[in-house]
Parts: sequence; C-alpha cells; structure tokens
Amino acid sequence: MSDSFAARRALIDRTLADAASRTGAPAVLAAPIRRALESPGKRVRGILLIAVGEAFGCRAEKLALAAAAIEMIHASSLILDDLPSMDDALLRRGAPTLHREFGEDLAILTAVSLLNHAYGAIAKAHGELSPRRWQMQQVVQRVVDAVGWDGTIAGEAVDLHSEGSTLDFDTLEFIHSRKTGALFVAAAAVGGMLANIHSAPLQRIEVFAKNLGLAFQITDDVLDVTSNPAVLGKDVGKDEQRLTFSKLAGVDGAREIAQELVATSLVAIEPLGAAATPLRELATMVRDRVR
Amino acid sequence: MSDSFAARRALIDRTLADAASRTGAPAVLAAPIRRALESPGKRVRGILLIAVGEAFGCRAEKLALAAAAIEMIHASSLILDDLPSMDDALLRRGAPTLHREFGEDLAILTAVSLLNHAYGAIAKAHGELSPRRWQMQQVVQRVVDAVGWDGTIAGEAVDLHSEGSTLDFDTLEFIHSRKTGALFVAAAAVGGMLANIHSAPLQRIEVFAKNLGLAFQITDDVLDVTSNPAVLGKDVGKDEQRLTFSKLAGVDGAREIAQELVATSLVAIEPLGAAATPLRELATMVRDRVR
Repeated sequence: MSDSFAARRALIDRTLADAASRTGAPAVLAAPIRRALESPGKRVRGILLIAVGEAFGCRAEKLALAAAAIEMIHASSLILDDLPSMDDALLRRGAPTLHREFGEDLAILTAVSLLNHAYGAIAKAHGELSPRRWQMQQVVQRVVDAVGWDGTIAGEAVDLHSEGSTLDFDTLEFIHSRKTGALFVAAAAVGGMLANIHSAPLQRIEVFAKNLGLAFQITDDVLDVTSNPAVLGKDVGKDEQRLTFSKLAGVDGAREIAQELVATSLVAIEPLGAAATPLRELATMVRDRVR
Repeated sequence: MSDSFAARRALIDRTLADAASRTGAPAVLAAPIRRALESPGKRVRGILLIAVGEAFGCRAEKLALAAAAIEMIHASSLILDDLPSMDDALLRRGAPTLHREFGEDLAILTAVSLLNHAYGAIAKAHGELSPRRWQMQQVVQRVVDAVGWDGTIAGEAVDLHSEGSTLDFDTLEFIHSRKTGALFVAAAAVGGMLANIHSAPLQRIEVFAKNLGLAFQITDDVLDVTSNPAVLGKDVGKDEQRLTFSKLAGVDGAREIAQELVATSLVAIEPLGAAATPLRELATMVRDRVR
C-alpha cells in the first residue's frame, strides 16, 4: 500500500476510533460497537471517497467523516452478512464474528446502530462542506438508494435466496452490482458531490467506481477459493453453496474478468488527467490482489 | 378514536402503502416490506407528529411523509424486537411475526431497509417544508439520536440484558425513556421543527411527548398482563421475565402512574391554548386505554 493510501486509511481509522470513544451507549452496547468500529479493515470504500474528493480539491480531513460513515455502513452490512440466519460465518477481520463474541441480539443492534449513526455523520459532513451544487437531501438520498431497496440490502436478499438455483451471469451481476457495487459507487459519488463536481466528471467517477467495485468483488471471490483464513482474516470456502464468478468462469477466468474491469475503470477516468492519479493507484491495488 | 385521528391515521396508512408499492425491491424482499408497511398499526407516533405540526399551522398532507418515516422506524424496531434472538415473539399486529412468515434473514433485512428508507423520507419532508429555523442536519440528527446509541437501540440492548437482575425504577426508567420515549419525543419534535417552532413552545411539546410516551409504554405493560392476544394482536405475558411497571407497582399502581404521567403531559401544553386541542385528545386516548 502506498504512503498516501496508508495515510488516508489511518485518517479513517482515527475518525472511527473517535466515534467509538464517544458513543454515549450503555456499556452492554458500547463494547460491540467499539469492536465493530476498531477491528482492522481495508477501508477501501472510505479511501475511494477521500481519493475522489481530493482529486477535485477537497482536503482529506474534511472528507474523513463522510468516509467513516461509508465504512460504518459497510461494517454494518458485514455484521449482518455474518449472522447465523445469513452466512453463519465464524471469522471476520481476523477475529470471531460479532455475534459469536457478543450474541446475536447485540450484533444485530450494533449493525443497525452503525447504519443509523452514519446518516448523522453524512448530514454533518455535508453541512461542513456545503457544496453549492448538491443539496443535503440529494447526498442523503444517494446513500439511501445505495443501501436500500434496490441496493446492498436487495443484493443480499437475492444472494441468500438464489443459492442452489441455476447459475447465470445476470443474477450474479444483479447481486454483485448491488451487494458491492452500489456502496462503491455511492462512496465515489459522495466524494465527488462533496467536492462539488457534477455532470461529466461525476459520471466518469461513477463508471470508474462501478467497474472497480465489481472487480473488487470478483477478486474477493477468487481469494475465497485460493486463500486460507489466516491470511484472509475471514472464513474461506463460504461461497461453495453460492453463485460466484470463479464458479461461473473458473478461477483464471474470474481473474481475467477482474483485470478487464479494472482496465475499463481506468479508461473512464483517463480524461481527468493528473488529478486522478490516486484513483489509478487504487485501481492498480485492486488488480494486484489476485495477480 | 375521533374523526380527526382516524383521518390522520388513514393519511399515514396511505403514505406507507404508497411507499410499499414503489420500493423497486426484488420480489423476495418486496413481499416482507409490503407486509411490514401495510399491517395495521395504531400509528400513534405518526399521529403525534402530524398533530403537533398542525397545531402550529402546517397542513397534515405536508407532514405525512415525515410521519410515515417515523412509523417506518417504529415498524423496524418491532420487527427486530420480535426476533428469536430478542423477544422471540409469535404474533404481532394480529398476524405471525415477520420472521415466522418470511424467515429471520429477510425479517432483519426488511427492518434495516425500513430504517434506511426513513432517512430519505425525512430529508425529503424537510426539503419540501424548508422551515427557516431548522436546518436539515438538525432534524436528521434529532432522529439519529432518538434511534441510536443513547436511544431506542440502547433501550432495547439494556432491556434484553437486564432480565433477571434486580428490579429498580432507575433501570426501568432508562429502558422505557429510550425504547419508547425517545421516538415519541423525536416524532413530536420533528413535527414542531417542520412547523418552524422553537424555544419554549418546542420544549413544552417535548415535555408533553416524553410524559405521554412513558404513559403509553406503561399502558402497554398493563395490557400485557390484563389482555389476551386476540384483542391485543400480539403475544401477551411476554413480559414475565422482564422488568415492567406493573411488576414494580402492581397493575393498579401502574395504571395510576400512567394517569399521573398523562396529567403531567397536559400541564406542559396548557399555555399553548386552543391550538393544542388535538394533543389533548391524543393524551386522553392514551389515558383511556387502561381506564
């Protein structure tokens, strides 16, 4: 990881740790919240938000709260994914899953509280930056759509209920574009909106993020097959019952699709010139996960 | 129920049904969302929001979206409450609980999606009314605080984890003020903020709602002991393992506390004059639940 990414990640980690230390939650809830916010993560969605905002002239410090909000939403979705009624996972980010350590009830309440808190943080981030072209309502709705009824939650629902059915690319694209893609695109879009960009540059950023998000998900699929839990920090082989790109196209085929998606993402931001250098570095990082 | 309350409730029901018909969710998720939004409810929190806004000159139609948002958040919390890892309830609003009909995974995803969607609706309601004195960020944060780390979710966490411990009024007050009180107060406050009131009148409304919410919860405790599921539409006797006011003070004592809280709520809005008549009617309705 390059120095600039490490610095952005550290900034996000500090912002999350700060939130964890000031929840005002009763002890029984404060402990799982702290675990959820402080367990190590790649923070790739938050880094993406900051990299986009910085590419268009925002300072990283001003973007940290929104980036942390996106990471809270992501952490929330991981906690839910791991529940016994969903993936029933044992390991996440190198530690026992939240429900195994704190019980299912507190895991669910923690996940819901992280999503809830994120909306306050997004509103606050918009309030501080006050981008002329984007009203708070538009930014909030953008995140609501990414998470909601045709977003991450929809992807998760279809993923859980399409197991065992016929494998097909369309269903898989539906699931991945929502489960992973939607929040990637929203992270990039919020970064761009907070930096006050619109029309063509914003659209380019969104195409970049959409392709990069899908590539990221596919590299996850590949790592699920080729890695071991000690390296990955989460259960592997969980995808056996599930549609994945590596099952549809084989590991080598999936790797190839990921490379192509990264290439497409890079084409989208070509006209943005030198400002988009951090975005190119991010794309390269994703590509190199499964090289 | 008086005609004006029936009209407000019908308006909220229509707004919820409208949202249910336009989720854009995949079929597997659309069905439990529709069930959650269209199952009959008292809508007391939404009615409270509208009654407050109307008392200060807003039209009910303009407040319907915010009222529906509060009812979505309430519906979300009921779905979570009923889960096997929490209350493990069989019956809610006269029908099988959502997880019994659709499975635990879809119940959880539905609950989370309702909370998520509510924030878009609140932002939109603020955008349409644009109260001069209150920025969107303040209204959103108000709801975030009511739901979150020191709100409904905190109350639920402490409630679940204080079972079997020594009964005491302070813990019970902590639980009730958050589990029920926080969303009552937020509903009233949002109604007032959207109607552009502030300082003393808003504070009076909040004191009114706080006392009324607690009274409402205590009448629920009493009904849990004195009612049967066919009448109540949800499991009764679920509170046996749990701290309740009727256990602490006896059924008659709890009834008396509820009456006193309603009286206190009425004192708070006395100076508001004739405009507050609908709020007085609402308080009377709560009192008469266990008369």
